[in-house]
Amino acid sequence: MRLALDLASKAKGQTDINPVVGCVIVREGRIVGLGAHLRRGEGHAEVHALRMAGDEAEGATAYVTLEPCSHHGRTPPCCERLIEAKVARVVVACKDPNPQVAGRGIDRLREAGISVDVGLLERESMLMNEMFNKFIVTRLPFVTMKSAMTLDGKLAAKTGDSRYVSGPQAREMVHTLRHRHMGIMVGAETALVDDPELTTRLSVPAVHPIRIVVDSRLRLPLEARMLQDRSVPVLVLTVEGSDPGKRAALEAAGAEVIDCGGGSRVDLKIAMRKLGEREIGSILLEGGGKLNGAMLELGLIDKLLLFVAPKVIGGQAAPGVFQFDGFEKMAHAIPFRDVQVERIGSDIFLGGYPDYETGDRTGGA
Amino acid sequence: MRLALDLASKAKGQTDINPVVGCVIVREGRIVGLGAHLRRGEGHAEVHALRMAGDEAEGATAYVTLEPCSHHGRTPPCCERLIEAKVARVVVACKDPNPQVAGRGIDRLREAGISVDVGLLERESMLMNEMFNKFIVTRLPFVTMKSAMTLDGKLAAKTGDSRYVSGPQAREMVHTLRHRHMGIMVGAETALVDDPELTTRLSVPAVHPIRIVVDSRLRLPLEARMLQDRSVPVLVLTVEGSDPGKRAALEAAGAEVIDCGGGSRVDLKIAMRKLGEREIGSILLEGGGKLNGAMLELGLIDKLLLFVAPKVIGGQAAPGVFQFDGFEKMAHAIPFRDVQVERIGSDIFLGGYPDYETGDRTGGA
Repeated sequence: MRLALDLASKAKGQTDINPVVGCVIVREGRIVGLGAHLRRGEGHAEVHALRMAGDEAEGATAYVTLEPCSHHGRTPPCCERLIEAKVARVVVACKDPNPQVAGRGIDRLREAGISVDVGLLERESMLMNEMFNKFIVTRLPFVTMKSAMTLDGKLAAKTGDSRYVSGPQAREMVHTLRHRHMGIMVGAETALVDDPELTTRLSVPAVHPIRIVVDSRLRLPLEARMLQDRSVPVLVLTVEGSDPGKRAALEAAGAEVIDCGGGSRVDLKIAMRKLGEREIGSILLEGGGKLNGAMLELGLIDKLLLFVAPKVIGGQAAPGVFQFDGFEKMAHAIPFRDVQVERIGSDIFLGGYPDYETGDRTGGA
Repeated sequence: MRLALDLASKAKGQTDINPVVGCVIVREGRIVGLGAHLRRGEGHAEVHALRMAGDEAEGATAYVTLEPCSHHGRTPPCCERLIEAKVARVVVACKDPNPQVAGRGIDRLREAGISVDVGLLERESMLMNEMFNKFIVTRLPFVTMKSAMTLDGKLAAKTGDSRYVSGPQAREMVHTLRHRHMGIMVGAETALVDDPELTTRLSVPAVHPIRIVVDSRLRLPLEARMLQDRSVPVLVLTVEGSDPGKRAALEAAGAEVIDCGGGSRVDLKIAMRKLGEREIGSILLEGGGKLNGAMLELGLIDKLLLFVAPKVIGGQAAPGVFQFDGFEKMAHAIPFRDVQVERIGSDIFLGGYPDYETGDRTGGA
């Protein structure tokens, strides 16, 4: 199962809204088949592994990181393939949270007389597909916020200068993160000040995420670098009343302009719903501070990845990592659970999941 | 030597401006003497160990964490005691930076025909006495800043509420830190808002540091809790022109009022010099943000101990951990070296030393 998880994890970022899955088939103590799901619409992990095993699958044990599917999607159900191949036993790491599967795959295998065990390395498998697991149930994208800040919580100097907060190793990791998300989202302020390309720059070819700019007043300039590269879509999220002339110009420049509510600022809850409808299952949120703050306040951030550079920049006007009204009591602060701490080069990496349920925030923001 | 370091480190916080020192005497593979310097004015580590060893010191090897003293201070020089006892060899972790010693102890031992080796576990020994090492050379206190902040760099909510930022384990550690410093310093703002006692509250009896309040406008109320407990001095640092009536009242309440310059705000460089003259060799700086920022900007913080609570409070008006004008370029930020990262209960502990030499800050603050 450990090997199956390894196989699956290598495909992170290349399976679109599909989960990553690995499969290892073992017969009489020998591995006879290996497989992973590599691309949406193409063969599932079990199919690849069964093909490799051939006749040797009969009587063998299949280790799969996710419950085999029972429904006809873009590919035929894997359950039937396992049954046809006459495997004797299937070990499943975790059930599929997809409401179209949700235990039916396991039931189907058992009906066919195959012995099924569930729960081996379950937590690892769930974590590996945490983005998929949210999307398949809620149809809302899983949002990972990534940021680099100084020890005093600043994204930049008071002048806006931010080259560089974190070291080269942390900056390199960002590109791996981009590869692993379907969309990348920034605020108009960041788009204006930093003029980022928002592409995945790794030493090997990688997947580029869809670029998303939250831009209530359509301030994104037509000369923005991200509009020059048309190989990846640019979505501009705005409000119904924004400037029609600028809207037409942005569309002519290749961007898709999407209305998110009729207020003065983009309704981020509507935005998430509309991005989910477009099957953008995961988003890497790269700030700045106002967008980070608004997203956190609304409970829309699922995971936080923070690179803390051990240095102090100072300045009351220097932009903070989360800018929002804030809570009145320390007991109302949003805590993070499953906190991870690591050294990345000269920086400190902090990861965690906001726990919106803990603490009474009714008197807060 | 490892044992000698252990012995010494246990005495941290109880030797006043003296360094902590440990000594172990070994003869024919057996420990024959152990000692540590426990209190200023009383026996040095070597004396205790030699006394324990008695006649067995002859021909033995003495392991000492710091170069034995050669001068007549409050106690007779240890060199002479080692020579009299006829030890054959002395192993020294590090030279004494005290300009009154500085190699002379080692020279004296060698002149007397004793074999001397220097440098075993040198770094550990230097670190153990980092506070003493600064003070003995500069006559300025070693300043350790301790703070607890949220993930977004805030000391409190926008309302000032700060109960509690960090968890019980981090809060308990603060009292050990207080025990290990001779003075504890806060700003008037913190004294007003939190009304702290600033005593060492451990489950065992401990040493209380001298309380120091930076209070340019003499705002410390006479009812302040720290003025009620007269067992430990309270020093109020102010400016020459501050209210004479309030000054007299504070003095009547038992505080010592010290002028630090004639400006509108306490001159912190003068303050450090005056505290050094009073033989306050080490200070634990417990903020708030304005005092932290001013001290850092002036290069007066020697070491930082930061407890980061994994939660977000938000609020532009919520006080930040370092409040000062700030630098214009990210490249001008003050970096920290020898960064240490640890989990303390639910919090993340970050330690480090500000490196004021790195980066060009002429265009900065």
